[in-house]
Amino acid sequence: MNKNSSNIMALAPSTSNKRETVCIFGTGDFGRALGHKMIQSGYPVVFGSRSTQTSSLIPKGAEVLSHAEAAQKAAIIIIAIQRQHYNFLTPLAEILHGKVLVDVSNNLKINQYPESNAEYLAQLVPGAKVVKAFNTVSAWALQSGTLDASRQVFVCGDDTEAKQMVMDIVRALGLTPVDQGSLLAAQEIENYPLQLFPMWKFPILLSLGLTTFFFFYCLIRSVIYPYVYENEDFSFFLAISIPNRICPILALILLALVYLPGVLAAIIQLYRGTKYRRFPDWLDKWMLCRKQLGLVALAFASLHVLYTLVIPIRSFVRWRISSRIISQALNNKTEPLNTTNAWLSDSYLALGILGFFLFVLLGITSLPSVSNNVNWREFRFVQSKLGYLTLILCTAHTLVYGGNRFLSPSSYRWYLPNAYMLSLIVPCIVLVVKFVLIFPCLDKPLTRIRQGWERNPQYSE
Amino acid sequence: MNKNSSNIMALAPSTSNKRETVCIFGTGDFGRALGHKMIQSGYPVVFGSRSTQTSSLIPKGAEVLSHAEAAQKAAIIIIAIQRQHYNFLTPLAEILHGKVLVDVSNNLKINQYPESNAEYLAQLVPGAKVVKAFNTVSAWALQSGTLDASRQVFVCGDDTEAKQMVMDIVRALGLTPVDQGSLLAAQEIENYPLQLFPMWKFPILLSLGLTTFFFFYCLIRSVIYPYVYENEDFSFFLAISIPNRICPILALILLALVYLPGVLAAIIQLYRGTKYRRFPDWLDKWMLCRKQLGLVALAFASLHVLYTLVIPIRSFVRWRISSRIISQALNNKTEPLNTTNAWLSDSYLALGILGFFLFVLLGITSLPSVSNNVNWREFRFVQSKLGYLTLILCTAHTLVYGGNRFLSPSSYRWYLPNAYMLSLIVPCIVLVVKFVLIFPCLDKPLTRIRQGWERNPQYSE
Amino acid sequence: MNKNSSNIMALAPSTSNKRETVCIFGTGDFGRALGHKMIQSGYPVVFGSRSTQTSSLIPKGAEVLSHAEAAQKAAIIIIAIQRQHYNFLTPLAEILHGKVLVDVSNNLKINQYPESNAEYLAQLVPGAKVVKAFNTVSAWALQSGTLDASRQVFVCGDDTEAKQMVMDIVRALGLTPVDQGSLLAAQEIENYPLQLFPMWKFPILLSLGLTTFFFFYCLIRSVIYPYVYENEDFSFFLAISIPNRICPILALILLALVYLPGVLAAIIQLYRGTKYRRFPDWLDKWMLCRKQLGLVALAFASLHVLYTLVIPIRSFVRWRISSRIISQALNNKTEPLNTTNAWLSDSYLALGILGFFLFVLLGITSLPSVSNNVNWREFRFVQSKLGYLTLILCTAHTLVYGGNRFLSPSSYRWYLPNAYMLSLIVPCIVLVVKFVLIFPCLDKPLTRIRQGWERNPQYSE
Repeated sequence: MNKNSSNIMALAPSTSNKRETVCIFGTGDFGRALGHKMIQSGYPVVFGSRSTQTSSLIPKGAEVLSHAEAAQKAAIIIIAIQRQHYNFLTPLAEILHGKVLVDVSNNLKINQYPESNAEYLAQLVPGAKVVKAFNTVSAWALQSGTLDASRQVFVCGDDTEAKQMVMDIVRALGLTPVDQGSLLAAQEIENYPLQLFPMWKFPILLSLGLTTFFFFYCLIRSVIYPYVYENEDFSFFLAISIPNRICPILALILLALVYLPGVLAAIIQLYRGTKYRRFPDWLDKWMLCRKQLGLVALAFASLHVLYTLVIPIRSFVRWRISSRIISQALNNKTEPLNTTNAWLSDSYLALGILGFFLFVLLGITSLPSVSNNVNWREFRFVQSKLGYLTLILCTAHTLVYGGNRFLSPSSYRWYLPNAYMLSLIVPCIVLVVKFVLIFPCLDKPLTRIRQGWERNPQYSE
Repeated sequence: MNKNSSNIMALAPSTSNKRETVCIFGTGDFGRALGHKMIQSGYPVVFGSRSTQTSSLIPKGAEVLSHAEAAQKAAIIIIAIQRQHYNFLTPLAEILHGKVLVDVSNNLKINQYPESNAEYLAQLVPGAKVVKAFNTVSAWALQSGTLDASRQVFVCGDDTEAKQMVMDIVRALGLTPVDQGSLLAAQEIENYPLQLFPMWKFPILLSLGLTTFFFFYCLIRSVIYPYVYENEDFSFFLAISIPNRICPILALILLALVYLPGVLAAIIQLYRGTKYRRFPDWLDKWMLCRKQLGLVALAFASLHVLYTLVIPIRSFVRWRISSRIISQALNNKTEPLNTTNAWLSDSYLALGILGFFLFVLLGITSLPSVSNNVNWREFRFVQSKLGYLTLILCTAHTLVYGGNRFLSPSSYRWYLPNAYMLSLIVPCIVLVVKFVLIFPCLDKPLTRIRQGWERNPQYSE
Repeated sequence: MNKNSSNIMALAPSTSNKRETVCIFGTGDFGRALGHKMIQSGYPVVFGSRSTQTSSLIPKGAEVLSHAEAAQKAAIIIIAIQRQHYNFLTPLAEILHGKVLVDVSNNLKINQYPESNAEYLAQLVPGAKVVKAFNTVSAWALQSGTLDASRQVFVCGDDTEAKQMVMDIVRALGLTPVDQGSLLAAQEIENYPLQLFPMWKFPILLSLGLTTFFFFYCLIRSVIYPYVYENEDFSFFLAISIPNRICPILALILLALVYLPGVLAAIIQLYRGTKYRRFPDWLDKWMLCRKQLGLVALAFASLHVLYTLVIPIRSFVRWRISSRIISQALNNKTEPLNTTNAWLSDSYLALGILGFFLFVLLGITSLPSVSNNVNWREFRFVQSKLGYLTLILCTAHTLVYGGNRFLSPSSYRWYLPNAYMLSLIVPCIVLVVKFVLIFPCLDKPLTRIRQGWERNPQYSE
């Protein structure tokens, strides 16, 4: 439903008085925000607090009572206080018996306590039905109504009926409840809002490292070398020329790194003759962040496309072309068309275009809503077949770009080869090994191993 | 599941006769389409109608009876008639007692009646369990099977069991039921299909207004001025040159307008010393359509990129460059490389590329399926940190583009500055104020206020 | 939730022993993988097998018993064996009475058996509650934890409680259960993992056919003709020039083919005077794959944009431009600016840019997550109004590109017109017929027909 739906609802007259009373323990920022939103949605709200003085901050229409009195008025009690203070609930155990306790708390660090706050709460008040919910929503978002981020509220709990009651409230507030199962899931739900792109850390750090390396490499070859030997100032290469050398190199290397672990896994399985032994840890982790590696590679490829397409607008390029034309005109000579050059230039560009096009297709299919509409067979077809085709096209693009420069001595400045040559190492290895693995003498045993066959069953644990 | 799934199902033999009979009141277009689809999915269908003559239009296999007779045959009755005729149900109240009545009606205007049709129905037949559903699906889509738009059917009702029965039917028809809670949500559900991008109205009107203004502004400066003073016909600037001036201006202004309300809100909160007083209405509304403003800005930025990249293909540009080269060749002089110009041109382009790249990233994270997979902390990081970086890059791009032209008198035609100078006003204000707000002397109290602290608690309402 | 969530959960200590025992019949690859995952998630697992010897492959912590013994230990029994062996369950009917049997099987071909495996299972063991689930997940994905494709598990069954129990397990394993209704849906669920983009077959085959035709057409006109008559080697046109002629042609034709069936349907309805007779089968199928046709057209349009933007970087183009400039310089003449050419070139580019921009917008709104957030009215507005605008802009782009070349005899080589002229046929027909259909004398009866009115009610079946 539309983003503004919750607002419309909030403005609608809440004529119905069928909603059940909800009790909120704690009058802090989050408790008040939640209470405010609930009153808007037609719920009678009663706050439980140490001091029963109605503060000016308490949302209008809410009652403030002592904890015990408030708890008695409602079947659902939202515990909007911090974990450290949970033990004040122990004396209330009798009153809380059979009630639904909603744990909305968050921690400051991932896995801060051995057990989740919700499980701790369930241990403190064994007679109550504890449900974890609302911890992914911020007080600010509740109050302002600008719920642009995820509207998902993860809910878990051992009592199905209690969970259902909480999920009904979530829905009434204009949010989307997502049932995560039993209270065991609480730890995960509590860690969730503390994460900052955990799967992206390795790909981003890796690409930062590679970027730094290739930046200085290109700086030495393209700016410092001509400055030292020819006394020419090409410092403006820093803005476009050098980034446009780094981006395609990183795109190609990262794309190859997406397919390298699959190839390594195949070799390991062939060597071991079984699929039932775990891969080394680093390989497991590497395989899990392949999607992110691929998307970072796509980002570099997109930048490379943009940097390349602005080439003819660059002042330096215009100057170089026009001075070449003028010198030809002044020398009164016309170069004939070099068909080989035309072929090289055109096929290099065409390979790049097709490679980038397939790369973008891969990126689109990795959008959650697209990959959710695709079955396993289709996903494998796209990510494996189309993925390898992309890698082949991009490697060929780089090879043709090199063209006849590979062996030219002018490409080696201070014995350093052109940077793009370095970028070809990993993709070529991946493609060669993959090509070898396709041969029936290796493909057949591999397929059998992946279907569960074992070479030496006695050795498996 | 795949789009064609409902068709496959329709073709499958409906051997099972376990489905419960469904009664449909009303033999209009929608009632028949729904009946047709239900028979395909294996439901026995009986129509209730004033005239019990079986018309040729009634789907094959359906019975037509009087209202009373039809109602007795089924536990679920779909009311496929218009609200104005609902009162014929009053005499049937006894037969309808305990039955599930499904209100599928829509209105012609938003909030046409004080209460929703479903609530009105519930008042008319108090003994029945009213469920709102199916109003977002069109008769045409049901009949043709081309359910390309949303397959979501919003369902609401006060009786959980009745709602569950209706949701099971929805699922059986190949649609996705979305539980919206109690019957209170019916008003919103009835308004939903009448909306036409309500959140987009303001951003689109604003950008249309700004586009018109800058169009005439550029027309005067770039076409009329040279025609009047130099008698040159640059009317073809209308096709690309002027749009390519308007697009970046609008992209920059709209992007700045995305971040302006946040800055204003911070100032208001600092001035008031509390976060517990509502913002003025215009600010609230502005904050709610920031996402749409940003996406319109992204659209203008994308057009700017396309317009810029075709520059070297333009016939006019090719003519200008070649005539400049020819005149140099004829005058037998070669310009040396101007390193400052190369720096300016390259860094201007590089800033634009990076700004656009980040802008597209922001756009991708605002896709519903992506933002749903992102927690609040990650969303804030992307939309706030990356967003400001985008604004800084785009503003710098425009400033460097201006370069040394700011003070050149030739930039002022009829005392009108270049249009891009006007576009810098809002983003510069936003960036300066934001920079000031980062200072600890302002940032600390602001953070405390946003955590609930108040400077003068007695003044708050 | 994040992709790695299931891993976190797997690593978390499964302290709770509240989970109910699950029994798995069959110790094959899939049964073991599922058992492994369940043990990780805290379920006690017992395998039922013919030989009760504990193999080294059985996940640690699982018991292996005879079928009868294993079945008695659990309320849920997962049947991880192939359909051909289901009849061994008949003697166990008594023990299985009242148990939940989960059918996880897949077939090798679509619609391989008259009834689905799950329905067959339900017939064999009438006393059990059969639920279909897990067939869309692969053993490999379960074991490796790389669930990058859809995490959706389609669940169907006639017993609501049994279905709920299975959906709870699905959730506990970190997957998303999707309730598909009664056991009737099993056939569809079993066919799902066997599909390979069924809706894309026709659009892709059609575009392959058209591509081949236009490839040879352009090859004859652009490479063979100049080679025969002028002995010039333009073979390098194969890389970019010819693809850049084929792509826009296919984009335009396919886009027109998206709107042609709608126009045909209107003509048929007007001719028949009713909407209640089925369209011919080919038209129905055509209408169902319009989205895919449009997306393939968008792919060709994107390639056209990329091919066009690299034009100024091509070695051949640089050579052609510089040799033209040099010859002008040597002949000492300067061409004046041709305003007509400037207008034609700029408006041709501008129309293309706007058309492509709208085309991308259409593509974005067809993303599942976006179209799910859009109501029927908004979807029709975008796909119909914006769609026709796109078609008009792209057709105009092609017409202006042709410009004054239409009648020039040099455009006809071997009496073959330029390929782009052929591409204009279908879009022009669609636009003309659509324009005629807008006239009130045709639009009014059409609207009435679509609302259910019939010209000759007696003729309808």
